Amino acid sequence: MQVYSESEVKERYHMKDAITAIEESFNKLNQIKTAPRTVIPTGDGAKSMLYMPCVDLAKQLGTIKITSITPENPKQQLPTTQAQIVITNLKNGETKAMLDGSYLTRLRTGALSGIATKYMSRENATTLGMIGTGGMAYEQFLGNIEVRPINTVLLYNRTTEKAQDFKTRILKDYPDLNVQVLEDVSKLVKQADIINCQTPSTQPVFNAEDVQPGTHINGIGSYQPDMKELDANIFTQAESVVVDDLEGAKEESGELIEANENKTFTFEEINDELKTLSQQGTLYRKNNDAITVFKCVGAAYFDLAVAIGAYEKLNQ
Amino acid sequence: MQVYSESEVKERYHMKDAITAIEESFNKLNQIKTAPRTVIPTGDGAKSMLYMPCVDLAKQLGTIKITSITPENPKQQLPTTQAQIVITNLKNGETKAMLDGSYLTRLRTGALSGIATKYMSRENATTLGMIGTGGMAYEQFLGNIEVRPINTVLLYNRTTEKAQDFKTRILKDYPDLNVQVLEDVSKLVKQADIINCQTPSTQPVFNAEDVQPGTHINGIGSYQPDMKELDANIFTQAESVVVDDLEGAKEESGELIEANENKTFTFEEINDELKTLSQQGTLYRKNNDAITVFKCVGAAYFDLAVAIGAYEKLNQ
Repeated sequence: MQVYSESEVKERYHMKDAITAIEESFNKLNQIKTAPRTVIPTGDGAKSMLYMPCVDLAKQLGTIKITSITPENPKQQLPTTQAQIVITNLKNGETKAMLDGSYLTRLRTGALSGIATKYMSRENATTLGMIGTGGMAYEQFLGNIEVRPINTVLLYNRTTEKAQDFKTRILKDYPDLNVQVLEDVSKLVKQADIINCQTPSTQPVFNAEDVQPGTHINGIGSYQPDMKELDANIFTQAESVVVDDLEGAKEESGELIEANENKTFTFEEINDELKTLSQQGTLYRKNNDAITVFKCVGAAYFDLAVAIGAYEKLNQ
Repeated sequence: MQVYSESEVKERYHMKDAITAIEESFNKLNQIKTAPRTVIPTGDGAKSMLYMPCVDLAKQLGTIKITSITPENPKQQLPTTQAQIVITNLKNGETKAMLDGSYLTRLRTGALSGIATKYMSRENATTLGMIGTGGMAYEQFLGNIEVRPINTVLLYNRTTEKAQDFKTRILKDYPDLNVQVLEDVSKLVKQADIINCQTPSTQPVFNAEDVQPGTHINGIGSYQPDMKELDANIFTQAESVVVDDLEGAKEESGELIEANENKTFTFEEINDELKTLSQQGTLYRKNNDAITVFKCVGAAYFDLAVAIGAYEKLNQ
């Protein structure tokens, strides 16, 4: 039994690896089995334990992500969401490893946005606009810069100071980028080639009218029915709306659930799941002026792909 | 994050501890929450992964038992069932420890039989008859000798050689006991004050007609609807039939399910759950000549009780 901390995983397993692992997994989803997520409330509000098991019959490895949600944690400088992923060898039933799952969750979510951007955004997209600079943001940034020649990053956050900190963090790692903090979100939206939203907002964080032709949008913040960071009008303006997991999106994406209820944009109008884009392997957008939207809620088999990928790399 | 192997847990945490932990947990079940067990089949037959989560809101600790069932394993001298238990601190969401769960599962099952024997068998019971000497048997033996003045142990196993090995194992630890291997199960049944069955048999392993007045029976082997080690006629002969967990028994005890379907003994006739006996704290049997039966299928909150108990003891 090996235990890997966040820093050990982080040192060896990167965005490029995660994108490759997830795209490879799309080609063998018939060998991957999941069970519904189990949630046990453990206190007030969102306080809870979440359990997401999954098995890869081809590799004969199983994973379970054990996630704790502790809303009071930020008061004590601890993260709200913490996770561990346990890997079992299905050939002989032995537990092989426990990996810190917090970085891997952020990484796989960033990789999903990266894959969406790779197939959906204009190939000459250079300006990334980020709305929300919280815990998930850095790997969202990494996912986008991995696949497009980004030279400008625009940041907006409700608390501007946090956006400034995030700018400092980016420039430390990527000093050649042009990074700007904006206090007016509509300025960001109008200038961005790619808009990446990662907030827990229950209301739209931008106005769909501000979105320019040719823009691609990734929305990864809302993962519960009451969360609605994307302006649902964007779905009707878009050439294509793609989700990471159709079943999950119908149950967890607040924006899509509301649009479906209001019949402004129904679940049947969702164009594809991300796996189809990856399997086709070509640019998905038909028109340089089109608006495209990717909505991501997460699923256990993405955690499995990166956990097994990281485990294999750590054991090379 | 601490990882504890089977031998580390075994060295510090014993049958007496497990019995105490489970009986204490009976008094705060309103603070313990479980979710249904998740099962993902991973191959032919019973090959599967099982996930059993549970939280103790009073202690603010959560556990999940991750179990692998690998039926081909014995061919390679590996156990069919292997388990790990992960403990999370609910106060701050941090994972505290991973404990090998195989010994703890055997121990909690032995403790449940021990608790049943303590409240249900005659107080002067001295002869323990064990049917099945496989992987679960030793802790069943320990559970019984912890609570009754056992001086004689009768063993029966389909493969007699394994019963001989088990006798050697007992005598190594308890040289003063009178231990006999019998080749005729009815001889064992007729002599025993307590009969403890731990087989995966799909047919009765003894004949109810052989059971003498005053005998107490523990059945822990059948935990799936197709497993039926107890002769269902014993339920109608018994003064009382007690189960560890009523919901689990209705879904998993093959004997009780069949008896209920045949209307020879319905679920409504089950007298009590084990917790009631423990809470009353007095001898449950009314009559020295009565036959009593305890049927055990297991539940996540028993795993939680011993895992937290062991974790606390290991950290004293």
